Amino acid sequence: MTFKVAVAGASGYAGGEILRLLLGHPSYISGDLEIGALTAGSSAGQSVADLMPHLPQLADRVIEDTTPEVLAGHDVVFLALPHGHSGPIGQVLADTNPEAVVIDCAADFRLQEAGEWEHYYGSEHAGTWPYGIPELPGQREELTGAKRVAVPGCFPTGATLAVLPAVAGGLIVPDLSIVSITGVSGAGKKAAVGLLGAEIMGSLRAYNTAGKHRHTPEVIQNLSAVTDDEVSVSFTPVLAPLPRGILTTITAPLKEGVTAEAAYETYRAFYADEPFVHLLPVGQQPETQNVVGTNMCHLQVEVNERAGVLLMTGAIDNLTKGTGGAAVQCMNLSLGLDETAGLPMAAVAP
Amino acid sequence: MTFKVAVAGASGYAGGEILRLLLGHPSYISGDLEIGALTAGSSAGQSVADLMPHLPQLADRVIEDTTPEVLAGHDVVFLALPHGHSGPIGQVLADTNPEAVVIDCAADFRLQEAGEWEHYYGSEHAGTWPYGIPELPGQREELTGAKRVAVPGCFPTGATLAVLPAVAGGLIVPDLSIVSITGVSGAGKKAAVGLLGAEIMGSLRAYNTAGKHRHTPEVIQNLSAVTDDEVSVSFTPVLAPLPRGILTTITAPLKEGVTAEAAYETYRAFYADEPFVHLLPVGQQPETQNVVGTNMCHLQVEVNERAGVLLMTGAIDNLTKGTGGAAVQCMNLSLGLDETAGLPMAAVAP
Amino acid sequence: MTFKVAVAGASGYAGGEILRLLLGHPSYISGDLEIGALTAGSSAGQSVADLMPHLPQLADRVIEDTTPEVLAGHDVVFLALPHGHSGPIGQVLADTNPEAVVIDCAADFRLQEAGEWEHYYGSEHAGTWPYGIPELPGQREELTGAKRVAVPGCFPTGATLAVLPAVAGGLIVPDLSIVSITGVSGAGKKAAVGLLGAEIMGSLRAYNTAGKHRHTPEVIQNLSAVTDDEVSVSFTPVLAPLPRGILTTITAPLKEGVTAEAAYETYRAFYADEPFVHLLPVGQQPETQNVVGTNMCHLQVEVNERAGVLLMTGAIDNLTKGTGGAAVQCMNLSLGLDETAGLPMAAVAP
Amino acid sequence: MTFKVAVAGASGYAGGEILRLLLGHPSYISGDLEIGALTAGSSAGQSVADLMPHLPQLADRVIEDTTPEVLAGHDVVFLALPHGHSGPIGQVLADTNPEAVVIDCAADFRLQEAGEWEHYYGSEHAGTWPYGIPELPGQREELTGAKRVAVPGCFPTGATLAVLPAVAGGLIVPDLSIVSITGVSGAGKKAAVGLLGAEIMGSLRAYNTAGKHRHTPEVIQNLSAVTDDEVSVSFTPVLAPLPRGILTTITAPLKEGVTAEAAYETYRAFYADEPFVHLLPVGQQPETQNVVGTNMCHLQVEVNERAGVLLMTGAIDNLTKGTGGAAVQCMNLSLGLDETAGLPMAAVAP
Repeated sequence: MTFKVAVAGASGYAGGEILRLLLGHPSYISGDLEIGALTAGSSAGQSVADLMPHLPQLADRVIEDTTPEVLAGHDVVFLALPHGHSGPIGQVLADTNPEAVVIDCAADFRLQEAGEWEHYYGSEHAGTWPYGIPELPGQREELTGAKRVAVPGCFPTGATLAVLPAVAGGLIVPDLSIVSITGVSGAGKKAAVGLLGAEIMGSLRAYNTAGKHRHTPEVIQNLSAVTDDEVSVSFTPVLAPLPRGILTTITAPLKEGVTAEAAYETYRAFYADEPFVHLLPVGQQPETQNVVGTNMCHLQVEVNERAGVLLMTGAIDNLTKGTGGAAVQCMNLSLGLDETAGLPMAAVAP
Repeated sequence: MTFKVAVAGASGYAGGEILRLLLGHPSYISGDLEIGALTAGSSAGQSVADLMPHLPQLADRVIEDTTPEVLAGHDVVFLALPHGHSGPIGQVLADTNPEAVVIDCAADFRLQEAGEWEHYYGSEHAGTWPYGIPELPGQREELTGAKRVAVPGCFPTGATLAVLPAVAGGLIVPDLSIVSITGVSGAGKKAAVGLLGAEIMGSLRAYNTAGKHRHTPEVIQNLSAVTDDEVSVSFTPVLAPLPRGILTTITAPLKEGVTAEAAYETYRAFYADEPFVHLLPVGQQPETQNVVGTNMCHLQVEVNERAGVLLMTGAIDNLTKGTGGAAVQCMNLSLGLDETAGLPMAAVAP
Repeated sequence: MTFKVAVAGASGYAGGEILRLLLGHPSYISGDLEIGALTAGSSAGQSVADLMPHLPQLADRVIEDTTPEVLAGHDVVFLALPHGHSGPIGQVLADTNPEAVVIDCAADFRLQEAGEWEHYYGSEHAGTWPYGIPELPGQREELTGAKRVAVPGCFPTGATLAVLPAVAGGLIVPDLSIVSITGVSGAGKKAAVGLLGAEIMGSLRAYNTAGKHRHTPEVIQNLSAVTDDEVSVSFTPVLAPLPRGILTTITAPLKEGVTAEAAYETYRAFYADEPFVHLLPVGQQPETQNVVGTNMCHLQVEVNERAGVLLMTGAIDNLTKGTGGAAVQCMNLSLGLDETAGLPMAAVAP
Repeated sequence: MTFKVAVAGASGYAGGEILRLLLGHPSYISGDLEIGALTAGSSAGQSVADLMPHLPQLADRVIEDTTPEVLAGHDVVFLALPHGHSGPIGQVLADTNPEAVVIDCAADFRLQEAGEWEHYYGSEHAGTWPYGIPELPGQREELTGAKRVAVPGCFPTGATLAVLPAVAGGLIVPDLSIVSITGVSGAGKKAAVGLLGAEIMGSLRAYNTAGKHRHTPEVIQNLSAVTDDEVSVSFTPVLAPLPRGILTTITAPLKEGVTAEAAYETYRAFYADEPFVHLLPVGQQPETQNVVGTNMCHLQVEVNERAGVLLMTGAIDNLTKGTGGAAVQCMNLSLGLDETAGLPMAAVAP
């Protein structure tokens, strides 16, 4: 099968990561995958050599404007645009090219409840597309052959994978205290004094705290699908001095009688067949360096008896499993390719 | 008043920080404070020039062995030794030189309950000395003129200051979920593969999780002094790629009817007269870079209404307010000097 | 003596560093130094609490506009403005308040040759003020009591101090190959994609290479004052992932017969009485962490016999000895205070 | 073709990088490449899960002792051992299994002159194997089908590729001033206080300066093969706070009449057909983040007319093109596979 792929928003971090993965995809190496239009907003007209010198194979390419016309004629279109931009263009693409696979990395099509969308994003709800975590129960089937995919947010991916077996397996009361520590690429490639190297290196700070972060309802939505309990989430994102990686730590009240062994076994069984979820040996904690550049999620689960809580920790690369890798994983499912094709499992560590 | 100071364990990070602060202390500049013996274990015989080139004023000094004889004849002795070492030598110093001020930076004399000590440290309990957080109710008075001081651990300092007004003021049910993200100097200056620069930069990892960290009982002890409720602590320390700094995030169930305004006002009033605790303006989160090299603790408190929790965040420099600065602050109180003398408040940022 | 100090450009990194040092200055602690107007351009109207949370003592201050009226009535005015801005306002201040000490941290008054200024900065030459490296021969005398000071650039300070004894002492042919590796605070506190944390951490890059960097003529000017040889400089600045610090490496052809011992002794003797220059023991290389937050320059000099070159290496903190510390050192000389007052020598390491 | 590969010294950084690349190699994915014995010294008996959690596919493997018996029966053996260890075992493997491809990542077989080896390494010279930079004139032919390969040092690779066209093309007098700034993984995975994260982050320091670094004779050997001029090298390695990457800066006196355009064209033509050398567009400097995880070398060349020097800059990943990637590139040539197979060109940036 040969297919042609466009990336809208190619000059940002998510777009660049999708391109990095496509360039290593076996379909690209065999010549079946053609990289077509690369588009952006204010960067249009500049060369890939100037904007993304880490992609030398595409150095001669020029970034085009993000318009339906430029994106037409592709079999797969990745949208790596700011929130609110993929709604309108996604609709046009769906209308004009219904056979194309459109994979949106923004939030526009993630939430099911219009009210939640409006509360957190302040604009009209664009709709709901199949949600791109194949590891959720039943979701792999929904994504196989899907023409539309809403790639999840990086924090929800990390948090959902870390806590899912505990909620689905009834290990905990789902009153979650989530602290997600993230590298700064998650904030995107936009000039801002607070994201300067001098402000980031040597510092740690929480932000969008106390319920303000837009990823909160996405986590609640994912977990509410696997439990009848009411899910409560306190979410505290923290910015840390590293380029890539999210370490998620979650605590929740342990249900009566759940042992450490039972909790570990629940996790082991839940993810036994998942190629991208790796439960670490007992006693070993996830480290973000061990997933850098990969589509993996490393997990650990422990019981704190004295405090009566379950501790769940997980590591992902926010740009790979957190965004671009999940997007390619979903493309593979959409096109009927091997789900793991082109997705590294061994990390660029140290 | 002139006085002579010794530092045992001078070649480690805590010892080096105490010396940095002493060299900038107004009593040193005026000639009243004399820096006497500098001692260590395996580094004895080496010069300060080799071991601590960041202290050029002491470059010609040679590190001596840590023995009671070398430490005799000083008015103030700082013990910056590994846990378990300051117990025995502290007793000898107390017996042979009862007038000397002995300030211990290890854990040996912090805990009141011998059982907790033995559970977490696995050796005989050495005793309990006045605990070096002057910001605890009544503690400044106990430390003023004290001949013995147990400097608190860096994590307990950060956590205690962040949550104290909420516990004392009855804002929360004291079921605490604490995540403390720390720079690596907290692990000390000892060779270990897991602490190599290549392993630390670009990575995040939790450690001593699920109740295993020795600082847990210290936090419980501090808080239990200000509440009749049972204090429960889930403590998750995380190692992050920065040299100095601890960001503490704490969530706990909010008590009925506590508003954001009331919570903030409780904190404002509680710390109104504290020189080293700085409650940030509403909406501003602490950043560790803003306390680097200082004895300050920056705090914020917020209500998450939807989740029904209080979020408390705080930033300290683990080597300054977390260890060496607290030690000098206690020395000032012991000797009747201005409590803030020689302790920076403006940070080396960015 | 009591005196009132204004800082123009207070919200940038240089301005913030001057304020950090003033807050720890013994004249401030004794009440003799009053911090008056703090001004800026686009940040005017904002509070110090918002802009510089690392200076809690000034949290309630509001930044004013940079105008001659606001800056009038001060005994000392620090100008920490972008290049080209201090020329005009410096002239007005000199005319309207000739008794005030005006210390300019920009390049406007550094160069003696108008042609060099115009070539590198592309605007009219503002003039030449006494140059703020007291360690240059005869310069301390010129700065003592001076009403105007041009603080040197950070790279020229590092390079000049590292190579000065070799040029003045005739150890080398002054064909210099200089590579200066710098932390990113040197690029200032302005939003730019290329300075984002994600772009800086984990990367190294040279910039303004091959003679393009504006600091080149300043180095040549400094060295030409101490030799009759023609000075040639190849200057390669490199951006590295750390907030503060410059490591300067310089090689130059060794003159016939110069031994390692003679070179070291030349350096030792040259700087024997300088409080802020620290020649390291033979065999020890400077590390930037050992000067962070200090006004120190650590140096080493070695002979590479096989290659026939002298290697000179030096470390400074670009914001302290490289800018703000030099400015305060010059203020001390201008006002007749102890030259070292308020200037740390012990570094915030690690 | 199916083949079985062993890695001796698998638990170090070079061994881990070779394994990361093998796991992504198309021959591994197709099942033709079998990963056989993984050996080490003191780590023998431990699992890959414990030692290299970034390689989840091999988590269940156990590290064996490095002995000829364990390494027997493989078609390819990578030696990633400390200097001096691969000499003896390399000889045994050559004697007992002459058909096996043995690729040594240590220095043992790199140097041609026994005297240079003894001067720099202080032990008996083991011999000389084909040198693993295929980009050197004539070297690709020598490596094709070779049974023995000496993989070059990381610094010599970076420096040689950056300066080779200038020396071969007669652009410069080969009196080279080389400053190579490196990430800390180059120092290996061994516990040492000077390599602790707290000592590395926020600091820069030169080491093994003034001719002491063992990579110096290797650079001279490489360049002397393409010029009749005497090659002189001043080499200054600098340790910088990043895990991976080397930025090499080289200056040398420009020969009369060489223009910027001619220099650039010389480089363009020299490397026109090299898959792993990427000359950047005029005016763009190499950044190490743009080669992280890849086998690429990014280059730039500029003329500094005023100083009369040529500036050559290059970026490689010390663990990939600098070690493990070069090793796999040589394996591909040895086995007659596509030279670029399994070697990423698009970097894990940011």
